[in-house]
Amino acid sequence: MIRWSSWYIHTTREIPADAEVVSHQLMVRAGMTRKVAAGIYSYLPLGWRSLRKLMDIVRREMDAAGAVELAMPAVQPAELWVESGRWQKYGKELLRIRDRHDREFCFGPTHEEVVTDIVRRDVKSYRQLPFNLYQIQTKFRDEIRPRFGWMRGREFLMKDAYSFHAAPESLDATYEAMDAAYRRVFEACRLEYTVVEADTGTIGGSSSHEFMVTAATGESAVVHCPACGYGANQEKAERAAWPSVGAAAPPPLERVPTPGRTTIADVSALLGVPADGLVKTLIYETDRGELVVAVVRGDREINEVKLQNAVPDALHLRLAPEERVREITGAPAGFAGPVGLRGAAILLADLSTREMRGFACGANEADAHLVNVDWQRDAAAFAGAARWLDLVTVGEGDPCPRCGEALAVVRGIEVGHIFKLGDRYSRAMQCTFTDEAGAEQPMIMGCYGLGIGRTLAAAIEQNHDADGIIWPLPLAPFSVLVVSLTPKDPESARAAEALATSLGARGLDVLLDDRDERPGVKFKDADLIGIPVRAVVGGKSFAAGSIELSLRRDREKVAVPVGEAEARLLDLVDRLR
Amino acid sequence: MIRWSSWYIHTTREIPADAEVVSHQLMVRAGMTRKVAAGIYSYLPLGWRSLRKLMDIVRREMDAAGAVELAMPAVQPAELWVESGRWQKYGKELLRIRDRHDREFCFGPTHEEVVTDIVRRDVKSYRQLPFNLYQIQTKFRDEIRPRFGWMRGREFLMKDAYSFHAAPESLDATYEAMDAAYRRVFEACRLEYTVVEADTGTIGGSSSHEFMVTAATGESAVVHCPACGYGANQEKAERAAWPSVGAAAPPPLERVPTPGRTTIADVSALLGVPADGLVKTLIYETDRGELVVAVVRGDREINEVKLQNAVPDALHLRLAPEERVREITGAPAGFAGPVGLRGAAILLADLSTREMRGFACGANEADAHLVNVDWQRDAAAFAGAARWLDLVTVGEGDPCPRCGEALAVVRGIEVGHIFKLGDRYSRAMQCTFTDEAGAEQPMIMGCYGLGIGRTLAAAIEQNHDADGIIWPLPLAPFSVLVVSLTPKDPESARAAEALATSLGARGLDVLLDDRDERPGVKFKDADLIGIPVRAVVGGKSFAAGSIELSLRRDREKVAVPVGEAEARLLDLVDRLR
Repeated sequence: MIRWSSWYIHTTREIPADAEVVSHQLMVRAGMTRKVAAGIYSYLPLGWRSLRKLMDIVRREMDAAGAVELAMPAVQPAELWVESGRWQKYGKELLRIRDRHDREFCFGPTHEEVVTDIVRRDVKSYRQLPFNLYQIQTKFRDEIRPRFGWMRGREFLMKDAYSFHAAPESLDATYEAMDAAYRRVFEACRLEYTVVEADTGTIGGSSSHEFMVTAATGESAVVHCPACGYGANQEKAERAAWPSVGAAAPPPLERVPTPGRTTIADVSALLGVPADGLVKTLIYETDRGELVVAVVRGDREINEVKLQNAVPDALHLRLAPEERVREITGAPAGFAGPVGLRGAAILLADLSTREMRGFACGANEADAHLVNVDWQRDAAAFAGAARWLDLVTVGEGDPCPRCGEALAVVRGIEVGHIFKLGDRYSRAMQCTFTDEAGAEQPMIMGCYGLGIGRTLAAAIEQNHDADGIIWPLPLAPFSVLVVSLTPKDPESARAAEALATSLGARGLDVLLDDRDERPGVKFKDADLIGIPVRAVVGGKSFAAGSIELSLRRDREKVAVPVGEAEARLLDLVDRLR
Repeated sequence: MIRWSSWYIHTTREIPADAEVVSHQLMVRAGMTRKVAAGIYSYLPLGWRSLRKLMDIVRREMDAAGAVELAMPAVQPAELWVESGRWQKYGKELLRIRDRHDREFCFGPTHEEVVTDIVRRDVKSYRQLPFNLYQIQTKFRDEIRPRFGWMRGREFLMKDAYSFHAAPESLDATYEAMDAAYRRVFEACRLEYTVVEADTGTIGGSSSHEFMVTAATGESAVVHCPACGYGANQEKAERAAWPSVGAAAPPPLERVPTPGRTTIADVSALLGVPADGLVKTLIYETDRGELVVAVVRGDREINEVKLQNAVPDALHLRLAPEERVREITGAPAGFAGPVGLRGAAILLADLSTREMRGFACGANEADAHLVNVDWQRDAAAFAGAARWLDLVTVGEGDPCPRCGEALAVVRGIEVGHIFKLGDRYSRAMQCTFTDEAGAEQPMIMGCYGLGIGRTLAAAIEQNHDADGIIWPLPLAPFSVLVVSLTPKDPESARAAEALATSLGARGLDVLLDDRDERPGVKFKDADLIGIPVRAVVGGKSFAAGSIELSLRRDREKVAVPVGEAEARLLDLVDRLR
């Protein structure tokens, strides 16, 4: 049992000017953290206690999954990074250091190099493989603009694991075990989460999944299938094939005047054609000056990540300026269409438009649109030359690419990322083993990250209200808050102390608010720091022989006789586990 | 229960060239650690597991002593160090860093500045004092020549605590509580230790104590009184006053030829006077060219730290060269004495010589000594001008300055240091509070360090033999090692597995050596990694229905019937707790 008066919790009403997100605001206000410099924080006792609970859960699940804990240093020699090639490639986010002898080091943002160096010296044979080494350790990433408190700090706590294998099947098995362990971690934390396929872009090749804690305030949108569990970043999410609409030929093509109507909504209203009967034509320009013409269905948004991936040679794309639009359409912006373009361009067509028959689109002529367009009959040149691709952002209600059920879009915060690395590091650093046939091979590696501070911040993003944090029990710094409401009244103060002591002796994590403060201050602080179960001892209720119990989540008060309070509290905590 | 084959322990017979001390050699050979760069180490699973046990003990005792855990960042902004004045004063051991925006930081070697900055923003009133904040955290000290493995690394784990008070009495109480907590930590670790008064030199003023784990290979000598507990660094240790030898006047002064006799032993033999009847005269030169003449009893060694403290204006002292000896004695080196010096010098006399009557000493003349010297009668000029001080190294058997009993000299390794800081940091950084009278005052601080890696290294220095580590149970990575001696024999392999599993289920920390290795390799590794209790399952003994039990400390084997092994092992572990 901990007494507030002799512990270290200093709440504040002020919201720091740089706290943009609610988790950061609440952590500072609750006295969980203090900023030391931009992106560098101290974990104060209340915050550290929650972090320790999370680290215990992570350790338990990593150990259960057969991972072995070690600890590698923060300061890493440049030589290892030169060997892996990252010293040259990693940008300014790598905090580079020179020691007193002018030798180069960095404050490690990850530990692939160090762990590979350990393993290549210790392990020589397939008989010593596989294994999975993990640590919970302090890392540094010199973000140009650190923000969001613990969510995107420069110095941060991370669980990182690295597995080493003789064969891809062994990596697959460990990858699955880590996936399962991560799910158990977030379930044990009582957090809502989703797992999504992630882009393997910069590292390339094999599989990668992100674990996202869902929260309305989350930084990323993810697409998720409640039916089969499919999930992906919205940038990467796919949908089931578009349905065929049959082959009935439309009435003949017609040109319709649409003076000044350049938006889908205006054109749709004027023509009496719904948005999903229109084809929208967007014209982009690459950094090398090429034009890109992309068509999508009128009711869909083009996804610029997918568009960029469709033109891999371009460094970047932007919407083409008016004069370039005129160059290819012969018309002002707003009247582009796939029929009768006049010049060279990269032609892209979203799959949503392929089965459209008799659609409307811009006429490539000022103040005019075409209706009853048929790809084969009226736009064969475009249809034949274009690449047909998935170019739109998948949205709420689109059919799942795996099972066809309706997808949901949720917002989330990335808290974990697992990765099949392959032999990228082991090959560069000669981390090899002798296989059964006596041949030397590079080891196959996986890596598995889980943000400790980020997970706690995400837990707050998911669990709070206007008055403060609502901790899920497994992450709460304390399970029960006993408020001694009238500490100057000896009888109620003694009862509060006795209740807290007795619950502590039963193994509960109890905080006793024994401060000499007004009830209003105590209630406000209790709401702010968000201990899940609360018992208020004192005042009228205590005079009437009762103690008031409530949960932070709903704050519905129940007065129970003093003698029953302990049993009821144990029961409340049990139900939250 | 952990299986060796699927964990990560890689022992080696090679002793790294840079491993000068036995703890470093054994840690590397046992696979507890690997060097990443000079003074920077990875903690491999076996080493990390011992560190985690030590950290649990430290946390338990710190919590019990009312300290509150938090965690502060490694990277600290220069501004805070400029405020305290340490940015300018701290030398090259402070690892200075520039971030991408060219702002200055350091990798903190201690956290006085950061904690004081937190506290000055959170705490305003005497009613919020005292408290004691601690962390177990990674620090960096850029040693010019890191050595001794974990003992003097650059990156290292440390428990540091900082207490804040309104009054000196409150600091005294916390200081005592920390002293008691440290004692409990080392007792809980089952380590022999001693507590010594430490020099408060550079920080000055108040009290400071060092905690030393004793070991024959320890880096420092400490003087210790087994009777009353008095302890001090040998450089600082005092002894009880020298006994008076009565006032009987000696026979008249005589000059005796002592050709070529320049050592105490030679002179003593020639004159037939014991060494403690001789006065030894040493001549030093300061960096500013002054001469210093110091006399001590012939059988004692001068302590150069005490000598240096006696001449505080000198930056350093060295034994004077021959020509300077001649300048003041008129004789070659080896014949100096306190009678008839011919020039200005700083005169110092050790208290050991004050009560001497009729002593022998150099005659300040080549090849001659004086006998029957009396201070007042024959050497009054020296005796009157000299400062009489404690100048010798206290040794084994000297009387304790507190109780008079015989002192012992032991070697040890400093593992903890507690300190009354006073208001040095709080005054420089305006960390103030409002006292009961409404006046603003700087807080009074204490700080308390305990080296985590150092303690583990010291534990090995204290507990090892030629074959490896002999872990005290509380720090052992595992309590019991079950050796499956003949893993290809299914019956004994099953029995080993069953025993290990069953002990694990009883809550013991068990390592099962299930490797497909020869018995010789297994025994050598077992001795090396030093698990305190061992059970060997297999071979002839198992064929005869027995399991062989032994303790690492004495390795005396007892064969017990298979069915009794578990109970006996539980009992052995209990006795080591």
